[in-house]
Amino acid sequence: MNNNPIAKPANETNITVAGAGPVGALLAIILARKGYNVNVFESRPDSRQHDIYQGKSINIALSDRGWLALEAVGIAEQVRQEAIPMKKRVMHAVDGTITEQYYGTDDQAIWSVSRSGINEQLLDLAEKENNVELHFEKRLTHVDFNTGCSSFSFDVAQSKGHIEVDADYIFGADGAFSKVRRLAQETPRFSYSQSYMPQSYIELTIAANENETGDARFKMEKAALHIWPRKDFMLIALPNPDGSFTCTLFMNYENKNEGEYSFNTLQERIDVANFFNENFADAMPLLEDPIDDFMAKKASPLFLLQVDPWVINNKVALIGDAAHAMVPFYGQGMNCGFEDCRELGEIIDQFNGEWCDIFPAYHKQRKINADAITELAQRNFVEMSELSADSNFQLQKKIEAKFNQLHPELWVPLYSMVTFCPHLPYSQALEIGDQQKLIMTQIMQIPNIAECWEDDFVYQKLLQLVQIHFQKEETKNV
Amino acid sequence: MNNNPIAKPANETNITVAGAGPVGALLAIILARKGYNVNVFESRPDSRQHDIYQGKSINIALSDRGWLALEAVGIAEQVRQEAIPMKKRVMHAVDGTITEQYYGTDDQAIWSVSRSGINEQLLDLAEKENNVELHFEKRLTHVDFNTGCSSFSFDVAQSKGHIEVDADYIFGADGAFSKVRRLAQETPRFSYSQSYMPQSYIELTIAANENETGDARFKMEKAALHIWPRKDFMLIALPNPDGSFTCTLFMNYENKNEGEYSFNTLQERIDVANFFNENFADAMPLLEDPIDDFMAKKASPLFLLQVDPWVINNKVALIGDAAHAMVPFYGQGMNCGFEDCRELGEIIDQFNGEWCDIFPAYHKQRKINADAITELAQRNFVEMSELSADSNFQLQKKIEAKFNQLHPELWVPLYSMVTFCPHLPYSQALEIGDQQKLIMTQIMQIPNIAECWEDDFVYQKLLQLVQIHFQKEETKNV
Repeated sequence: MNNNPIAKPANETNITVAGAGPVGALLAIILARKGYNVNVFESRPDSRQHDIYQGKSINIALSDRGWLALEAVGIAEQVRQEAIPMKKRVMHAVDGTITEQYYGTDDQAIWSVSRSGINEQLLDLAEKENNVELHFEKRLTHVDFNTGCSSFSFDVAQSKGHIEVDADYIFGADGAFSKVRRLAQETPRFSYSQSYMPQSYIELTIAANENETGDARFKMEKAALHIWPRKDFMLIALPNPDGSFTCTLFMNYENKNEGEYSFNTLQERIDVANFFNENFADAMPLLEDPIDDFMAKKASPLFLLQVDPWVINNKVALIGDAAHAMVPFYGQGMNCGFEDCRELGEIIDQFNGEWCDIFPAYHKQRKINADAITELAQRNFVEMSELSADSNFQLQKKIEAKFNQLHPELWVPLYSMVTFCPHLPYSQALEIGDQQKLIMTQIMQIPNIAECWEDDFVYQKLLQLVQIHFQKEETKNV
Repeated sequence: MNNNPIAKPANETNITVAGAGPVGALLAIILARKGYNVNVFESRPDSRQHDIYQGKSINIALSDRGWLALEAVGIAEQVRQEAIPMKKRVMHAVDGTITEQYYGTDDQAIWSVSRSGINEQLLDLAEKENNVELHFEKRLTHVDFNTGCSSFSFDVAQSKGHIEVDADYIFGADGAFSKVRRLAQETPRFSYSQSYMPQSYIELTIAANENETGDARFKMEKAALHIWPRKDFMLIALPNPDGSFTCTLFMNYENKNEGEYSFNTLQERIDVANFFNENFADAMPLLEDPIDDFMAKKASPLFLLQVDPWVINNKVALIGDAAHAMVPFYGQGMNCGFEDCRELGEIIDQFNGEWCDIFPAYHKQRKINADAITELAQRNFVEMSELSADSNFQLQKKIEAKFNQLHPELWVPLYSMVTFCPHLPYSQALEIGDQQKLIMTQIMQIPNIAECWEDDFVYQKLLQLVQIHFQKEETKNV
C-alpha cells in the first residue's frame, strides 16, 4: 500500500482504475505522473504477498511496442534483466527435423517475460507514486456510467462489506473478461461481440535440467520460440528464466471432420498417449507428464472481441484486453495494451487534460489499431500452424528478408512492421502488409523461384512491382 | 393463475419458461399440450390486471407464418377478429402524391395486431391448460446452466423475497434484452454479438376520428401499411382496431454527414417543426402533437443480434427475440418467434420427447432460418425507405407480379416467399431471392423496359433466364 496515504493529489481529478494487471498498473503510473489521483481496484489478492500463481510460469511475448511503453515510465531496463530474447522461430517437424526462421535482423528479438513478474514490477513502481492507491480483493459490483461512481464488494477473513468510490473517470483495465465491459453492455447503443474460435488450448511444461547452471538448464535452444506446427493444431514453447519452458497446445475443441484430433475426441488415455507420441515425438522426452496434464486440464477457450464504443459518456473507458482481447497468435496482446497506455498519456498532454477531447481522441486513435492487430492475430494461426512448416512460405520469408536488406526503406516484412516498428500504427502495418502480399504472390509465380530466388533479376522485379504498387497507392490517396 | 394448481402433470418433466410475452405464452401452451409441466415467470405485472401499457397501442405485423403457429393451437380465428388486414403498401411522396404496392395477390395480406391484445389472448389460453402456471412480477436472478434450476426475486406490496425453481429444462423466451441470454454469456464458448444500427426510432400517433363509426374512424386508408419513404429516414403507420394509427419514425441517431437529419441534431423545437413540415406535410394535419412527442420522447435503439449456440448443455434454450431479435423492417420478428415454437413442437414429436435429440435438432433447424430472416430484415430498410419510392423498383415489382401470375410454380417474389409461404424455410427464401435478384438485374437492362414491360418477349426472356438459372442451381446441388 501507499506509504503516504494522505499525500495531497497534484490536481483534483480522481480516476478509478478497475484491474491491477500489467495494463492497469502501467496506466496508474502514467495517470499519476500527469497529476491525477488514482485508485486501482483488483478482485484478486496481491500476488506479491500471496502465491496466487502456485508456481506456474505463464510467460508472454514482449516486443518493441511494449518496450517503448515501459521505457516511457523508466522500467524497461529492469524488466529486461528478467526477460529472455527469442531471435527466431525453431520449427520441429514430425520426424524431429529442425528448421529456423529469424524474426528480424540479428539484433532484433521478441522477449519472453513472466506475466506475474512484469505485473509485480509495475505494481511496485505504481506504489512509489504518491497519488496511486492499490486496493486488492475488491470485486467490482456496479458502475454508474453517468457519474463515474463505482461500487466494490470485499469478503476477506473477518471483514466483509462493500465500498462506494466516487471519481471523475473510470478506466476498465480488467482484462479479457472485463466486468466494466459486461456492465457497459446495458448502456444504450453499446455494440459488443464475443466470438469463440474453434481452437482451445492447454498449458504444458518442459522442466529445467536439474543440477545444471546457466544455459545448460534449458533442455532446448534457449533463445527461441519453439513451434511444432501440425496444421490443425500446434504446440509452442517459450523459455523461462529458471530454465523451464512453458508450452501451449492449441487444438480444435470439437473435431470438424471424422478422424481429426480435438480436445473433445481425445478422452481416453491411450488415445492421448498415441496422439503425443505420433505428433510430438521429439518433445516427449522433454515434456513433464504431458499425458497426465492433458487428462487433468480443462481446455481454455479463445475468443475474438469487438467492442464499440470503448468510451461511454466520456466518463468510463475500456483499455487493454477489456477493449480488445485477441487471440495470442501474434504475441501482441499485452504490447497493444501497453501501447494504449502510452498513447493515452500522449493524448492527455496533447489536449491539456481536457477529458471531453481526450476520450474521443483516444477511441479514434486506438480502436482502429486494435482492430488491425486483432485481425492480424487471427490470421496468424494459419501462419504459425501451417505455413511455418511450408517450404514455399519459408522461401517467401527469405526473399522478403533479402529484399529488406537491399532496400530497407522500401520493404519491411509485415511481421517486422508489427513487432519491431513501434512508431508505425498497426492499421498501417496491416494495410502495407496486404499490398506486400499481392506483390509476393507475383514473385512466387516466377518459374523455378526455389532455384533462382537469390538471383538479381528477382529483386529487380520486386523493386519494379513495389514502385508500381506503392506509387499507385499514393495516387489513390491523393 | 391456474384454477387447478394441484393437477397432476401428465408427465414428470418440468420446464421453466422465462418470459410471458407472446412467444413465452405460445411456447407454454405447446409444451403443456405435449404433457410437460410448465411454469412461466415474468418480471412485469399481468397486463390483464394492470394497465401497464397505459393506453398505448403497439401493433405488430402478423403474417402467414404467425397464423400457421396460432392455427396449430387453435387460437387463430379468435386473434383474427381483432386484426386488421393490410393488403398493400401506400407510399406518401413529399408532395403528398400517393402510390400503392400490393403485397401479394388480392386475397393475401399482412395483419396489424395489437401486441398486448395477442399476448393477453395467449395468456388466457395458456391458463386453461392444467399443467401451466403463470407467475408474474418475478424477476430472474440466476440460472444454473448445468441443472436447469433458476432463481427469481420478487418485491410486490408487502411481500419481498426470492424463490428457487427446480426444473428439468429452461427456455429463455424473455425477449430482445433477455436475462437468460445475458447470464449465458458467462458460460464457456458462448458466442454473442449485439450490434447497434445507425437508426433509432420513436412512436407517434394518428388518433381516430371522433364521433364516427366503422371505417370512417380511420383518417387514412385503413387496409394498408403507410410509408413516407425519405431515403435516410422514414415514417410508417399501421392501423389499430380503434381507428387510430400507430406511427414509427426511423432515423439515424447521429448524423453521418453535415446537413443530414438525425435525432441528435434535431434538438430545437423550430428545427423539429421544420423537419416535419418539410418532409411529412400530408401527415401533419393527422398526427397528434408530433412535435411535442418528438421533443419529449427518447429515441429507442435498434440492434442486430447474433447468438451461438441457442442451447446450453442441452438444459437451457433460447427462443424468439431472446435468440434472434432483429430489426423490424420485414415485419417478421414475432412471426419467426411463433415459428420457433411451432417447429419445436414438431421436433418434440419427431424425437419422442428425447430432449438430448430435440435440442440439437431445434438449434440446427431454427438458427439457420433466423439468421436468414435477420439478414433479410436488415436489407429491407433500404427497400422500405428508399426503393419503395423508386420508379424502377416499383416497375420491377410489377414485372415480378405479372411473371408470378403467368408461372406461379416458377416464380414467387421474395416478399411473398417470406410472408405468404409459411412452409418454405426463410433460408431457402433468401437463397432463391438472391438468384431472382441476379435475373431481374438482367431484365431491367432491357432497353426501354419502362415502356415495354408488359410485352410478351420480356416474360419469354424471364422464363428463359429462370430455366437456365435454376437448372444451373440444380446441377450445382447434385
